[in-house]
Amino acid sequence: MALSKLEKLRRVLERQISKGQINYAVPDLWNAWNYQGPEVRKLPTSELLVNPYRFYFAVIDDYLLPNKKQRTNYSKSLSQIQHIRPKKSEVGGEWVKRSVLYSTLIRTSSAWDHDRSFSLDIENFNGLKETGTFVKMLALLPLLKKMGVDTLYLLPISRFSLRDKKGELGSPYGIANFFELDPNLKEPMTGKQMTIDEEFQALVEACHILDMRVVIDIIPRTNAVENDLIKDHPDWFYWIKASESSKYRVPYVDGLSNTLSPLPQYMEQVYDSKDVQRHIAMFQTNPKDKDPALYETVLKQEGHLLDNIEKAFDLKIAPAFSDHINDVQPPWTDVTFFRMFLDHPKMNRKYLKNKQTPPYILFDTIKANLFPGDVPNQDLWETLVNIIPHYQSTYGIDGARIDMGHALPKKLLQMIINKAREVDPDFAFIAEELNPDNAEKAKESGYNIIIGNGFWMEPRIWEKKLHKFVYGASEIALPMFACAETHDTARIAGRDGGRNLARMTTTLNMLLPNLVPFINSGQEVYETQPMNTGIDCTSADKFKLPQDDLFYGKLALFDKYAIHYLNHNRWELADHLDGIKKIRQLWLDQILDKSSYLPLYFNEFDTPAIGVSYVNKKTGKCLLVVANSNVYNDIHCHASIEKLREAANNYSNTGRMLYATYEFGRDYHDFSPDGRVYFHLGAGEVKVIEF
Amino acid sequence: MALSKLEKLRRVLERQISKGQINYAVPDLWNAWNYQGPEVRKLPTSELLVNPYRFYFAVIDDYLLPNKKQRTNYSKSLSQIQHIRPKKSEVGGEWVKRSVLYSTLIRTSSAWDHDRSFSLDIENFNGLKETGTFVKMLALLPLLKKMGVDTLYLLPISRFSLRDKKGELGSPYGIANFFELDPNLKEPMTGKQMTIDEEFQALVEACHILDMRVVIDIIPRTNAVENDLIKDHPDWFYWIKASESSKYRVPYVDGLSNTLSPLPQYMEQVYDSKDVQRHIAMFQTNPKDKDPALYETVLKQEGHLLDNIEKAFDLKIAPAFSDHINDVQPPWTDVTFFRMFLDHPKMNRKYLKNKQTPPYILFDTIKANLFPGDVPNQDLWETLVNIIPHYQSTYGIDGARIDMGHALPKKLLQMIINKAREVDPDFAFIAEELNPDNAEKAKESGYNIIIGNGFWMEPRIWEKKLHKFVYGASEIALPMFACAETHDTARIAGRDGGRNLARMTTTLNMLLPNLVPFINSGQEVYETQPMNTGIDCTSADKFKLPQDDLFYGKLALFDKYAIHYLNHNRWELADHLDGIKKIRQLWLDQILDKSSYLPLYFNEFDTPAIGVSYVNKKTGKCLLVVANSNVYNDIHCHASIEKLREAANNYSNTGRMLYATYEFGRDYHDFSPDGRVYFHLGAGEVKVIEF
Repeated sequence: MALSKLEKLRRVLERQISKGQINYAVPDLWNAWNYQGPEVRKLPTSELLVNPYRFYFAVIDDYLLPNKKQRTNYSKSLSQIQHIRPKKSEVGGEWVKRSVLYSTLIRTSSAWDHDRSFSLDIENFNGLKETGTFVKMLALLPLLKKMGVDTLYLLPISRFSLRDKKGELGSPYGIANFFELDPNLKEPMTGKQMTIDEEFQALVEACHILDMRVVIDIIPRTNAVENDLIKDHPDWFYWIKASESSKYRVPYVDGLSNTLSPLPQYMEQVYDSKDVQRHIAMFQTNPKDKDPALYETVLKQEGHLLDNIEKAFDLKIAPAFSDHINDVQPPWTDVTFFRMFLDHPKMNRKYLKNKQTPPYILFDTIKANLFPGDVPNQDLWETLVNIIPHYQSTYGIDGARIDMGHALPKKLLQMIINKAREVDPDFAFIAEELNPDNAEKAKESGYNIIIGNGFWMEPRIWEKKLHKFVYGASEIALPMFACAETHDTARIAGRDGGRNLARMTTTLNMLLPNLVPFINSGQEVYETQPMNTGIDCTSADKFKLPQDDLFYGKLALFDKYAIHYLNHNRWELADHLDGIKKIRQLWLDQILDKSSYLPLYFNEFDTPAIGVSYVNKKTGKCLLVVANSNVYNDIHCHASIEKLREAANNYSNTGRMLYATYEFGRDYHDFSPDGRVYFHLGAGEVKVIEF
Repeated sequence: MALSKLEKLRRVLERQISKGQINYAVPDLWNAWNYQGPEVRKLPTSELLVNPYRFYFAVIDDYLLPNKKQRTNYSKSLSQIQHIRPKKSEVGGEWVKRSVLYSTLIRTSSAWDHDRSFSLDIENFNGLKETGTFVKMLALLPLLKKMGVDTLYLLPISRFSLRDKKGELGSPYGIANFFELDPNLKEPMTGKQMTIDEEFQALVEACHILDMRVVIDIIPRTNAVENDLIKDHPDWFYWIKASESSKYRVPYVDGLSNTLSPLPQYMEQVYDSKDVQRHIAMFQTNPKDKDPALYETVLKQEGHLLDNIEKAFDLKIAPAFSDHINDVQPPWTDVTFFRMFLDHPKMNRKYLKNKQTPPYILFDTIKANLFPGDVPNQDLWETLVNIIPHYQSTYGIDGARIDMGHALPKKLLQMIINKAREVDPDFAFIAEELNPDNAEKAKESGYNIIIGNGFWMEPRIWEKKLHKFVYGASEIALPMFACAETHDTARIAGRDGGRNLARMTTTLNMLLPNLVPFINSGQEVYETQPMNTGIDCTSADKFKLPQDDLFYGKLALFDKYAIHYLNHNRWELADHLDGIKKIRQLWLDQILDKSSYLPLYFNEFDTPAIGVSYVNKKTGKCLLVVANSNVYNDIHCHASIEKLREAANNYSNTGRMLYATYEFGRDYHDFSPDGRVYFHLGAGEVKVIEF
């Protein structure tokens, strides 16, 4: 049998071990698998000096491959590998409900200043890469495994545009080519001996060997202003005059309030607006249709296509902007929208004075699910539908999040989901849907889970939003992420409450009903600097780090950035999660079964205490999970468990404390005859009791 | 004109700058000359990443060579370069009395973990040396210059023996060849393009360009057990049977007390002792005289000479031991004594039962100044006499300390001193004489200065030894070192009083009468770990560092060691010295002139205050130097200045505070009409007032 990509990588690294007598440091967190190469030196910083070739070779050889089953082809999805097919009654991809997700931007999560030059170099003193790569990510898998993570959720890994890039590296959300991987994620250690495709294949294979799934992030609604599709398909985009582009701005509709959803009832007023008319008038026919012969000539010219088009046609791709009316955000200069329909929105074309108006970006055209045209852009749809199958067949991924999927034409979304499940019936879909009220709709579309609003609710402990989130979750039609932060939001450890808040939410999230644990890379080491300040951030959040920190003011989504893996408390949350994951595994069926769940209520008025409970109907065992959302002070509280006792027919007065943030496990006797349990909870403490 | 060695070094480094794009860190203290190469990166540790070729090139090019005078040959002593000859009335080398000495073991002072591998490597990841070299020492000269240092006092730089070496590197006091430099001090950056001789020449030249002198340490009394002289001169050494060597021990004389000076009156009892007789009986005729033919054969054998002698003759060189009777020290297994005389001590040979007794090591034979024989070992003496002239003619050194010079035959010592001053009449000699009572004798021998007991007196502030030292110094026949520590003693910052004590003594030492400032490398950054625990150390002194320090339990004299140059207060003492050196320069004539000096006494009983004063007889200006030897609390005190006023005829009531440890300079008005000055002194503070 031919070598798998992981085996090939192992061999390529092994052959070069003699080259590795270099000064290469990794954080000790990258060695949760206890690498003990003869060259290892432990530095006072908590870094290890290693031979990088041997180090990454060893994680494959010592940690990964021993778990590989013979005669198994790991390049398919885990469900395909394990021959798991959804039940007839079920939609595919329901495994995601049982999973623990780790969200990672590879270039950041596996970034390190390996030569300690106080600079994150693309090519360091030893010619090696310090931003992240697929290969380096392998060394983090043991840590993730320890934390109970079983799904790697990858922020975009496709090649993105570097034109007018934001920050030092540019945003991976400005896709230039869906079908090529971001070349920055290529590992120079393997040089020409492996392609970047093979390296990603090796990573997916490694995850599958560890029973971890891999989910990617796809962005079918926008594209970088500079992207590879323009050349052959200029008609898939919106164009304006280059000479007028400095005047391009989001039209403002007088008489409507700010940041309004683009509902049909506003459209007459929108089109009536002078500023909207000014805006629409800016749009132009695409260069190919304008002058096919000239376009052919331009294509043959040397230099940059967009520059050449601009010179020949005075045309430029129009930037995207928010689909909310009168949103205060400026245009998103680096991305643009796809033309989903070849005609104007059916519902609103009556408002257009000139029916020959070239395609234009407006709140309706870009909200194609609400305002479809009659003529779908079939070729484009075809392309978009094929993105996920490409990642399925080439790399064997297990699921995808669709960026702004709810703004796609309904039919297109359906095609995307169906096509992926044709390839792999157990393929999972995550909806970028923040509003729990839309869960039902997402479910109908075939999604398995929505992102939800945990990132916003969980940190707001004093307003009791965490209470509302936890107690309300079981009512939602789809599970949401039990998450305290995302790559777009402020960091939980950077908020008021700091590490206590981060520890409480991160551990509690592992045992909540109808909620799926979601850990944002860096969260496990109490990172305080957000990766992006897109959502729920203040302007101060960008400057969470000390001024002399290498990454002061930097955002991972745009800049070279490495997680602060040397943090003194770096192992703490991983250890907590390591403990709590075992409880989760034992109680997972109950956690997922709404009928096994009962909320825990407390006798104290307006208490910071939060509690959930589960009953195992077969054994009659009960699980109590309680948390103190006051992260500054301890509390005493009493939970009523009468209903739970009834449901379980369990009247035991002795339990076992399986987990407590600030205590070791012990027997638990604080049950009172009147059906209450007493808890003393430290600041932000979580306790788990089984009886 | 041919290139000087420093110019050659500059060129050799310059040519290789392109090789220097490597990961090479230096402490920022090594850049007191403000290097700003384009590659410099300041690390959060306070280290700088530099291109080492360019960095050392630049210190030569930017800092050293611009001070070089045209047509000057810097390879002679500074007095020769500057055509300074001692006055007829004076002995040569008196410049040392005006100097500020910096004592350095090059391999330690210029050592750094340049690749930050948490290991001081002889060959690091980049093939470069991390222990000190003559070349790297150049980068420290700007710091020393800032501190007012004008004499570099080098601990031994000759090749030493690695046989049975102590510690990781061996002691530089076990000399294997007086006429070869320690190859460890060779800089690999220059490779074969320069010899180690040239590199030391370049360092001496650099010092001379900066008006700094260079003094070396020579050890004419002992030699390594393995040394290059044995081969041709086995008769210069003492021999015992190899098969009996495990029984070799220091003889114990019953009836005499411990650690007794070997005075003539004890000798009858010494020779009467059974253990001394047992000891003497162990000694053997040297192998060459025993069997010249066999010795010739052995010399031709392959392998190690000492091993071959041992095999063929069952003979071994006898180790040295203390010359004090019943000293508790064990034998010094790595060194042996020279046979200064070819016959037994004149005074004691009557005690020998067998006049044919082979040469033996005993308290008298090794104390040759007290117990000479009749037949000097002329060839040996010739060799020893030629050591200093070799260093003078080859490198241009300016002075020397003679290790245990007082134990040499008087005539040999005289020959050594005279020969050196024939070469350079202004050559200075430092006596390794700790007892101020012997200053007169040292002066008669031609020494310029004795080490004295400052290192022992200064730290003992609570016993008022510092008082005694300061107030007594002007009475001593030769100046002593104003020093708070040496390479053999505990560190001043490691003693009770810590940094306050170190700061007080180091600054005060710059302005004391008949005392010459002496700074032990590391003292300027408050190093706490001694370099050796030879003198005035407790067993705890070896473990002054935290257990996780790379150099925990290491001693620079034996082990790989680097000064803690990253200490937070690393610039503090250098800044203090930078300020105080200017006062010293202005008042140096008065500080050196006993008749310009008056001790300052205080009105308070048993005060911790210490004071000295000087009068400039030409201008009538006065200088008050006061210190608070209480390093924990501040004090208020009043000094009487009536005598000073009389001597200066200066009745001014306004002065200028030129220096204060904890204040900026300001006008000083605290003079009272009754002839007193009031001082408030912080803990360990030093204040200097001119009026």
